[in-house]
Amino acid sequence: MNHWNELIYIYPFLNTLDEETKSIIKNSLIIREFDSDYTLIYESSSCLGFSLIISGSIRVYKLSDKGREVTLYKLEKGDTCYLSMSCMLTNKHFPAFAEVIEPTVIAFIPSSIFNKYIYNTLEFQKYIFENLYTKFNNVLKVLEELAFESVDIRIAKYLLLISQKANSSKYLYLTQEKIAQELGTSREVVSRILTDFKNKGILISSRGKISILDFDKLNNIAKL
Amino acid sequence: MNHWNELIYIYPFLNTLDEETKSIIKNSLIIREFDSDYTLIYESSSCLGFSLIISGSIRVYKLSDKGREVTLYKLEKGDTCYLSMSCMLTNKHFPAFAEVIEPTVIAFIPSSIFNKYIYNTLEFQKYIFENLYTKFNNVLKVLEELAFESVDIRIAKYLLLISQKANSSKYLYLTQEKIAQELGTSREVVSRILTDFKNKGILISSRGKISILDFDKLNNIAKL
Repeated sequence: MNHWNELIYIYPFLNTLDEETKSIIKNSLIIREFDSDYTLIYESSSCLGFSLIISGSIRVYKLSDKGREVTLYKLEKGDTCYLSMSCMLTNKHFPAFAEVIEPTVIAFIPSSIFNKYIYNTLEFQKYIFENLYTKFNNVLKVLEELAFESVDIRIAKYLLLISQKANSSKYLYLTQEKIAQELGTSREVVSRILTDFKNKGILISSRGKISILDFDKLNNIAKL
Repeated sequence: MNHWNELIYIYPFLNTLDEETKSIIKNSLIIREFDSDYTLIYESSSCLGFSLIISGSIRVYKLSDKGREVTLYKLEKGDTCYLSMSCMLTNKHFPAFAEVIEPTVIAFIPSSIFNKYIYNTLEFQKYIFENLYTKFNNVLKVLEELAFESVDIRIAKYLLLISQKANSSKYLYLTQEKIAQELGTSREVVSRILTDFKNKGILISSRGKISILDFDKLNNIAKL
């Protein structure tokens, strides 16, 4: 399967390279498909090269000693994985984890080709700066919520967001574990707050499923 | 006062420009000095151009509706202010505030000169990507602490850090307000935890000054 046309459409900087370089890159591409739940770890040994995400979705998260998680941002079509950037460019490792959350296709450009033909181009540098700047702002937003908003407000917001993504459905297929991971809190805290919401007549929660009964009340909490 | 030699030493990408461009930039520089506590806000109207920090220190922080703060990172010699970058390049405003914490000298390059001669150079793009990447990792570290560490551990770590910077001094000149701002918590929480530390014989706290009595105990809390 040839992904080249798709790639230059998603990553226009590739199209600014000269024809010979394009041909070299085209012939050296490694296309890999990853299933959901696959963990893309940051070990340099597993680095296949510079990554161009063609489709799917990857979650980048922090993991605490005690196994708690907080989601930093998602990587999708048009993004690159800073894990592989940093494993190629510096000796520092990327201080986070990444896992596939929707089946994902990534094109890898081998390090030697990337370093020789891509890294030193202006168009690539512009792309990478802009992409990182967007991620940076996402992370600032996550940080702001962690610093300033109580967990009940953050859970209410998250439930509304998930409902919105599912065409305002009142049925959300979510485990307490998943909510805790997204928001950087513990399952116990999520459980306590869902029970509180239940007592207030806002929702019913069963194994892996939440049914929202009162959107107005949930909106009120999210707006506090 | 001519800051040019200092500037090209701190920002080597300037030295890669051709002689004519260097001369244009040199003649268009606006040097401004800012006193401590001056707030560099993000209003586009006040943007003097692209900023190159020559000396001093700037604190970039988030502010909540309720007036709570959390410090994201510091900007120092060799850094640039993303506030001015984003006010020149995009319509998005930078989602944070910045204030001068040590007297600071900034060289500004007017937007028109920056856009015409600097932004489109490879060396500049490499500089800006690397600089942002470092800030990005700092922010991830702050986020990790907010998500996973309780406030008492974070305060213990912060006190040890400040002591270390003052040659392991046992006397720290810090207000509760300042600690709260740095760590994104409220003054009340800081007060409660300092009282707890006092009761444990770890420190004595008076107006604007903390005296550490027992470094071992403080280290133990920081390591929990």
